[in-house]
Amino acid sequence: MILTVTLNTALDITYRVPSLRQHASHRVSEVTERPGGKGVNVGRVLAALGHEVTVTGFAGGATGHEVRDLLASEAPGVVDALVPVAGATRRTIAVVDQHTGDTTQLNEPGPVVTPAEWSAFQDVYEDLLGSVSAVALCGSLPPGLPVGAYAGLVRTARAANVPVLLDTSGEALRRAVAARPDIVKPNADELAELTGSHEPLRATQDARRRGARAVVASLGAEGLLAHTSDGLWRAAPPSRVKGNPTGAGDSAVAGLLSGLAQHLPWPDRLSRAVALSTATVLSPVAGEFDRAAYEELLGRVSVTGEVTAA
Amino acid sequence: MILTVTLNTALDITYRVPSLRQHASHRVSEVTERPGGKGVNVGRVLAALGHEVTVTGFAGGATGHEVRDLLASEAPGVVDALVPVAGATRRTIAVVDQHTGDTTQLNEPGPVVTPAEWSAFQDVYEDLLGSVSAVALCGSLPPGLPVGAYAGLVRTARAANVPVLLDTSGEALRRAVAARPDIVKPNADELAELTGSHEPLRATQDARRRGARAVVASLGAEGLLAHTSDGLWRAAPPSRVKGNPTGAGDSAVAGLLSGLAQHLPWPDRLSRAVALSTATVLSPVAGEFDRAAYEELLGRVSVTGEVTAA
Repeated sequence: MILTVTLNTALDITYRVPSLRQHASHRVSEVTERPGGKGVNVGRVLAALGHEVTVTGFAGGATGHEVRDLLASEAPGVVDALVPVAGATRRTIAVVDQHTGDTTQLNEPGPVVTPAEWSAFQDVYEDLLGSVSAVALCGSLPPGLPVGAYAGLVRTARAANVPVLLDTSGEALRRAVAARPDIVKPNADELAELTGSHEPLRATQDARRRGARAVVASLGAEGLLAHTSDGLWRAAPPSRVKGNPTGAGDSAVAGLLSGLAQHLPWPDRLSRAVALSTATVLSPVAGEFDRAAYEELLGRVSVTGEVTAA
Repeated sequence: MILTVTLNTALDITYRVPSLRQHASHRVSEVTERPGGKGVNVGRVLAALGHEVTVTGFAGGATGHEVRDLLASEAPGVVDALVPVAGATRRTIAVVDQHTGDTTQLNEPGPVVTPAEWSAFQDVYEDLLGSVSAVALCGSLPPGLPVGAYAGLVRTARAANVPVLLDTSGEALRRAVAARPDIVKPNADELAELTGSHEPLRATQDARRRGARAVVASLGAEGLLAHTSDGLWRAAPPSRVKGNPTGAGDSAVAGLLSGLAQHLPWPDRLSRAVALSTATVLSPVAGEFDRAAYEELLGRVSVTGEVTAA
């Protein structure tokens, strides 16, 4: 069983409008809804790969109810261990302009989580750690949580001997890196914000010095750069692809976790992550991955690097 | 008891964002939610005026549940007689740019109402008509309903001897006018679309020829023009006011219904409607009215016109 944590789950809503104009009134021509938040997306991809997955985090209000209903109906392989909160789960609205294809995004901040709710979550989390092979901590913190929330969750996982992957940003990332997570997966901007360096090789090295045992930086179309105690690798798709990058980072996390749970060596984990994220860009539905493309890409990801002498 | 009908109820959501930019990602700084749809708004204003009010129409899904919860908590004087549907009540999203003050509006289409649900509604409506002094039919039709839906509801009300006010637009208005509603309240655009004339005096006359017993056209800051079998009146606020016109038309409908239910003569109904809609423009909260301003304005609305010789 793999566990993913999404403290700020979301009801992801997509609106299609013929043409978005500021200060005008629009009739939405198509509405789609998905259960969202990074860890929920990771969980869906893991379930699609055949893993047993549990998702936890918070869900509340009518929107939280919808997220749980959609999770049950659209991702039946995912076990829902979300913890109830009094506040309402946030909505995110992606407004797709059908004329230009561009997307305008509106993200609600999320519910204010009380100290009692945070404490209840930590109990659930600690219980779940007893039966999982890996855990991923994903996304932003909702209002009300201490900025060191992820640092605490990293320490709890490490105390329970469960390998922990962290995918967040800003001050929450900075604090949690110091708690020595097994893997952090920043994108180029998050890595630069953490380390002050825009040079990925230097920045991943710096992130390891700050506490991360392994750093896997996602560099967009260039693929992944992994800096680990076993060695340094670059993994890239066989060619650049065009498509919708929404969810590509979450798919990379799912690939890394999938390989971690199966004790694969780093090059295989990276191949899986790059193939999955590329297959996500290629899928016509945002956040889904194209399974045929994934299987075809898996053997064609280029992984180059050097193994550190033991 | 006054009845208002909202076939396409809505969860009205307002987002405040520092500055709305197309194709960018925005963190919403403030989220507010209200139960919406024209008839629901009219019902809230009537309840605030001290009338007994029942609202009916359709509500479904998680959003319909939220609309009913909000109605119970924020408009406790309004009796909820909404009919359940399998589809989800639509959301409307008003994105307010805090820098410019402008609003960009996104309206979902609403649930597809099945013939069985429409039939269930008609039974509820006919039952409710037995105990009401007036009924208002408000707003757009959700997908799935016949375009003659309002025409049927007008005929049912007239057969039950309940005076009926109609506030809709387009083909639904055209069909229902022919069923001889007691009052229609188009705005200038709706009236021009119905009659082909942009000259209000000519257009209101034409709308009466098409079947409406009385036509009250809302002409924005100029107030109301009423063409009735008792006479022709213009009613205007004492001075032009600045503010948010959202909900001003619904408040005018509430004023007309309030006066109708109390058998007031036309000039008093029109004074009430203009004072309420002006007090709504003056309120800092969209769709609410400023009670002190309403009471102060009530004696200062100018009503000019001529009474038709009996």
